Amino acid sequence: MKKEITRRQLLGYGAVMGGTLAGGAMLGNDMAIAGKDKKTWAYHELDPAETEKLGYEGFYEGRCCFGTFKSIIGQLGDKYGAPYEDFPFEMMKYGTAGVAFWGTLCGAMNGTAAAVGLLLSGEDRDKIITSLYAWYEKTEFPIYSPPKPVHDCNMPKTSAGSVLCHRSVGKWLQASGNTFISKEKLERCARVAADAAKKAVELLNAHLHGTFKEGAISTTASSCLACHGIEKEANALSKMDCRICHGDKLPHPKR
Amino acid sequence: MKKEITRRQLLGYGAVMGGTLAGGAMLGNDMAIAGKDKKTWAYHELDPAETEKLGYEGFYEGRCCFGTFKSIIGQLGDKYGAPYEDFPFEMMKYGTAGVAFWGTLCGAMNGTAAAVGLLLSGEDRDKIITSLYAWYEKTEFPIYSPPKPVHDCNMPKTSAGSVLCHRSVGKWLQASGNTFISKEKLERCARVAADAAKKAVELLNAHLHGTFKEGAISTTASSCLACHGIEKEANALSKMDCRICHGDKLPHPKR
Repeated sequence: MKKEITRRQLLGYGAVMGGTLAGGAMLGNDMAIAGKDKKTWAYHELDPAETEKLGYEGFYEGRCCFGTFKSIIGQLGDKYGAPYEDFPFEMMKYGTAGVAFWGTLCGAMNGTAAAVGLLLSGEDRDKIITSLYAWYEKTEFPIYSPPKPVHDCNMPKTSAGSVLCHRSVGKWLQASGNTFISKEKLERCARVAADAAKKAVELLNAHLHGTFKEGAISTTASSCLACHGIEKEANALSKMDCRICHGDKLPHPKR
Repeated sequence: MKKEITRRQLLGYGAVMGGTLAGGAMLGNDMAIAGKDKKTWAYHELDPAETEKLGYEGFYEGRCCFGTFKSIIGQLGDKYGAPYEDFPFEMMKYGTAGVAFWGTLCGAMNGTAAAVGLLLSGEDRDKIITSLYAWYEKTEFPIYSPPKPVHDCNMPKTSAGSVLCHRSVGKWLQASGNTFISKEKLERCARVAADAAKKAVELLNAHLHGTFKEGAISTTASSCLACHGIEKEANALSKMDCRICHGDKLPHPKR
């Protein structure tokens, strides 16, 4: 007889037992991911301002996903050596422009989330990512103003409303009047990478010091999910701001 | 005076030189990503059927992104040892349910793309990912039928039309009448992870043998991008099927 599965296990936060497959390791919040040689990938405090600069430089070295990831994990590698320095950073270039120019998840959001996933596990990881993504949706950026920009150009700010590259980049291109293949677009995304890396480290530092408070998802998403969330009618799996794609359904039709 | 940047460089396929930042390493198609100890992460042929099974089991061990990634890289680790076996696989759990339950990029698509990004670079990597994502959008799944399913349940097939988890899962939940937090949904995604892992390996094998042909993105996307693509008017950065979010704009209004 199969053992009953709890809600936490269904969400993947606990050991999963089922049928002929033995459960995976319990991945609680206290367990830092251990490398094969037992060195852990635990987080150590980083300077947000330094990370911001590295995020910007990292973008120009290998674009958004690579740049943001390396600004955190590579920085830990520079300070602490193995295992951080041994990570195959080139891998993260797959995430460029919403993965292979598909415009899906913003590379800066994919790279930072992956870094968080390397350093933390379980609900702590997910709460930090949620805070990061919620911040990204509503924040007007780029914020970072490099002292010596690679491309010194007019840089309007836009709020993406979405963690999807297609939307984030598209909205800025519309506002700025630039094309995708341009130095201006590169410069914008480099500065956004800086902003994202800095924010991720601020959240990680807060978590390290026990002062982390999870950021709230958009009020629209909260409102919609009150009825349409994963344990409700229509059970939509999403924390994204619903207006971006479902704006035509708002205001909500009366029942 | 700043050196002119080519289109290839702007897309990130070549060395980028700009201002005070030295360019990154040229990452051509022939260069396998080298680990710190010089062992490369080159691809070796894998059996699609074995990978399919491992993708399914990997899902139950650590969900979609982890499961698909480990089915490929972990399998290489089992066969060839380092550096594959040393990868911190637990990191990939960040990608669960479109990353931390945000419903963005499908974890199976994020995990497989990351695996491809570890094994290949540049345009080869992106063409394989494009083929994989184009396949995912249009294919009715799950296809895999495990000999001993963890959850033996009714399993309708749906085509997601999108690589976004919210849409992919949502469409199946609607068709199947299940809720997100259910064994049926877990089983569906486990089988989709199997399908995705198998497809990724089929593409990687074809590339290894010189028989790879890039799959076409959706006809809708191709059609829209003919005018709205990244070098055109409105320069939209996307390869996703536009209908999913912009269906209200089709058929295209006359000019």
